[in-house]
Amino acid sequence: MKYVFSDRISALKPSAIREILKVTSGGNVIPFAAGNPAPEVFPADVIENIASKILRQQPVTALQYGVTEGYLPLRERISEDLKARFNIGREFDEIIITAGAQQVVDLAAKVFLNEGDTVICESPSFIGSLNCFRSYNACLKGIPVESDGMDIELLEKALETEKNVKMIYTIPNFQNPSGYTMSLEKRKALYELALKHNVIILEDNPYGELRYTGEDLPSIKSFDDEGIVIYAGSFSKVLSPGLRVGYSVSPAEITAKMTVGKQASDVHSPMICQMIVDRWLAECDTAEHIGFIRSVYSRKLNLMCDCLDSEISGFISYVRPLGGLFIWCELDRNINMLDFCKAAAAENVAVVPGTAFMASESDRTNCFRLNFSTPTDEQIVEGVKILKKVCEKF
Amino acid sequence: MKYVFSDRISALKPSAIREILKVTSGGNVIPFAAGNPAPEVFPADVIENIASKILRQQPVTALQYGVTEGYLPLRERISEDLKARFNIGREFDEIIITAGAQQVVDLAAKVFLNEGDTVICESPSFIGSLNCFRSYNACLKGIPVESDGMDIELLEKALETEKNVKMIYTIPNFQNPSGYTMSLEKRKALYELALKHNVIILEDNPYGELRYTGEDLPSIKSFDDEGIVIYAGSFSKVLSPGLRVGYSVSPAEITAKMTVGKQASDVHSPMICQMIVDRWLAECDTAEHIGFIRSVYSRKLNLMCDCLDSEISGFISYVRPLGGLFIWCELDRNINMLDFCKAAAAENVAVVPGTAFMASESDRTNCFRLNFSTPTDEQIVEGVKILKKVCEKF
Repeated sequence: MKYVFSDRISALKPSAIREILKVTSGGNVIPFAAGNPAPEVFPADVIENIASKILRQQPVTALQYGVTEGYLPLRERISEDLKARFNIGREFDEIIITAGAQQVVDLAAKVFLNEGDTVICESPSFIGSLNCFRSYNACLKGIPVESDGMDIELLEKALETEKNVKMIYTIPNFQNPSGYTMSLEKRKALYELALKHNVIILEDNPYGELRYTGEDLPSIKSFDDEGIVIYAGSFSKVLSPGLRVGYSVSPAEITAKMTVGKQASDVHSPMICQMIVDRWLAECDTAEHIGFIRSVYSRKLNLMCDCLDSEISGFISYVRPLGGLFIWCELDRNINMLDFCKAAAAENVAVVPGTAFMASESDRTNCFRLNFSTPTDEQIVEGVKILKKVCEKF
Repeated sequence: MKYVFSDRISALKPSAIREILKVTSGGNVIPFAAGNPAPEVFPADVIENIASKILRQQPVTALQYGVTEGYLPLRERISEDLKARFNIGREFDEIIITAGAQQVVDLAAKVFLNEGDTVICESPSFIGSLNCFRSYNACLKGIPVESDGMDIELLEKALETEKNVKMIYTIPNFQNPSGYTMSLEKRKALYELALKHNVIILEDNPYGELRYTGEDLPSIKSFDDEGIVIYAGSFSKVLSPGLRVGYSVSPAEITAKMTVGKQASDVHSPMICQMIVDRWLAECDTAEHIGFIRSVYSRKLNLMCDCLDSEISGFISYVRPLGGLFIWCELDRNINMLDFCKAAAAENVAVVPGTAFMASESDRTNCFRLNFSTPTDEQIVEGVKILKKVCEKF
């Protein structure tokens, strides 16, 4: 039988990163392509104790069906924590627990996008989100992201000229893939523009807790007295991505629609995973754990930057990120980026070509993305040396 | 801000069942509305031991990102088991692990349905699947389901006359909500008709292991030498629904598209849940456990049928199911079904009005659905007595 697939899925390609990870998943590949937490930061003992206790004390809750909105104690705990620490959430907001922040993007798209509607996003941006919007046959309008965030003039122009703009998608903190952080001024300007044009903001903040330098900036959601922001959070980077626990904070009317959407997608997120996160928040010193993660990643970031500066500063330029997991390197114009990435892969160093992150295939880039959380210190040193050799061949 | 939601979500109502469950979730409500496994059948001790062992022995695998297709040992184990026991799966088939069977339905719809395409389904059918198809703006064509399965003549007529039919959705075993089981003859006829008309079959089999009477019938997928069947399986009814682990078996080309769809939805299913199911299959006597579940549910089914027969046989008729979780009761025509369900809820007995399961609002029914796995034996006896009182009021 010749299968006739839907238009939405025919246009969608598998994630370039996940494909690269499959090809370069051998033991001797240096992993600069992934965005995985470092294996050594998982609090495995703590999670084992928590899981045992849950399955002994609340086995039926852990194993039975749950409500689509998510495990209530966890929702309440997240709500209180976000209000107290970040001024996120108003009376009109409600939380839904999701399968990572990825599902917040999926549900926001499901709830707001008709086919052909436009999503304004940073370009480059996170490929998982771009592909999600594509899976709803949305049009993507990429706005170049500068070292202090989205180009606001171009954003304003896009809001005035693009048709059926429903949503602005942004990762303000330590953006994936650029590592850039949006300034407070631009956050406020973006919020005002969205309000003026009646457009929803989808604020994706998976890396917010991973700041290594400077002071936290207020999230866009913290300004949101008007109810135009869907805030996506995640425990993937601070606890475990394998548990797949994320959440959104959005006005109750939107959250109710997202709940109906989630019912149709997967009924609810696994109870044991939600309960593990809940107990971890309740019983553990999460600030200490996150401090530990920051210290590990900060060291790795500095090590990678030092290596890049000493080994290949003549071939690449980059803006040193203040946090997150990624460094966005621009190659000298004499080096073809795709050829470079292939040559690096041939030398067993996996990096992601920047084209994977562009909103449109016509958006050119000579950049590639490096991750510093997954490789060991030795791999960082060795990998950059290999990249130097690769550069010298061009 | 006035939110303008997508067409797909505007048309979608929350699951009537899940709304009923919210309203009637108080302690003194007799739960004939849910489809939950009995709390006493969860092997909580076993799962606790398995979870501890996983988190001690393979913490990084359990907590790190995994591949979208699912945990490989689990996929291999399911594949071997299905081949050996049910002749399900050919060389060309591949498995993907999903968030319950619900996500198989979601991914099959995502992969095959353009807006306006038609899905042929049984009427009544599982509301979660019907809502999922609706969330893709698909047209539903309901085929009346008889006590031996879908009306094949009407199916053939629909395949000849309906436009853009892409898929036939069926639950052949102990169907939800009717409890009916499709005969072998009809399974073969349905397969041949789908083949003739180039239409995909989505075979949903969450209750297949829960047969209490008679011999297993071959699944439709077991005939599938041509690669036209997507088979949806689940561990929700035999192990735990809270773990949210299901799977699909479909030709590799379809599975690859579903994988791309899942990447955009939730990246992958939680590792710990997949690994628990894998270890349970590998290390436990699953046949014994399923035998235990069958004995519990068989007893409850018989008890409920005995009560119905002795208390309200003058008011309702039903076909005694051979397995599954549900009894589909048709009320005497002198009793209005919706009024009856409301009156029952007022007396603290939760049942689901049959209209919730119809493919179209214009499909009339005077039936309601009873579940016998969730209530205790005492609740079954007491609940049917209350239903008798409610009947007598009409």
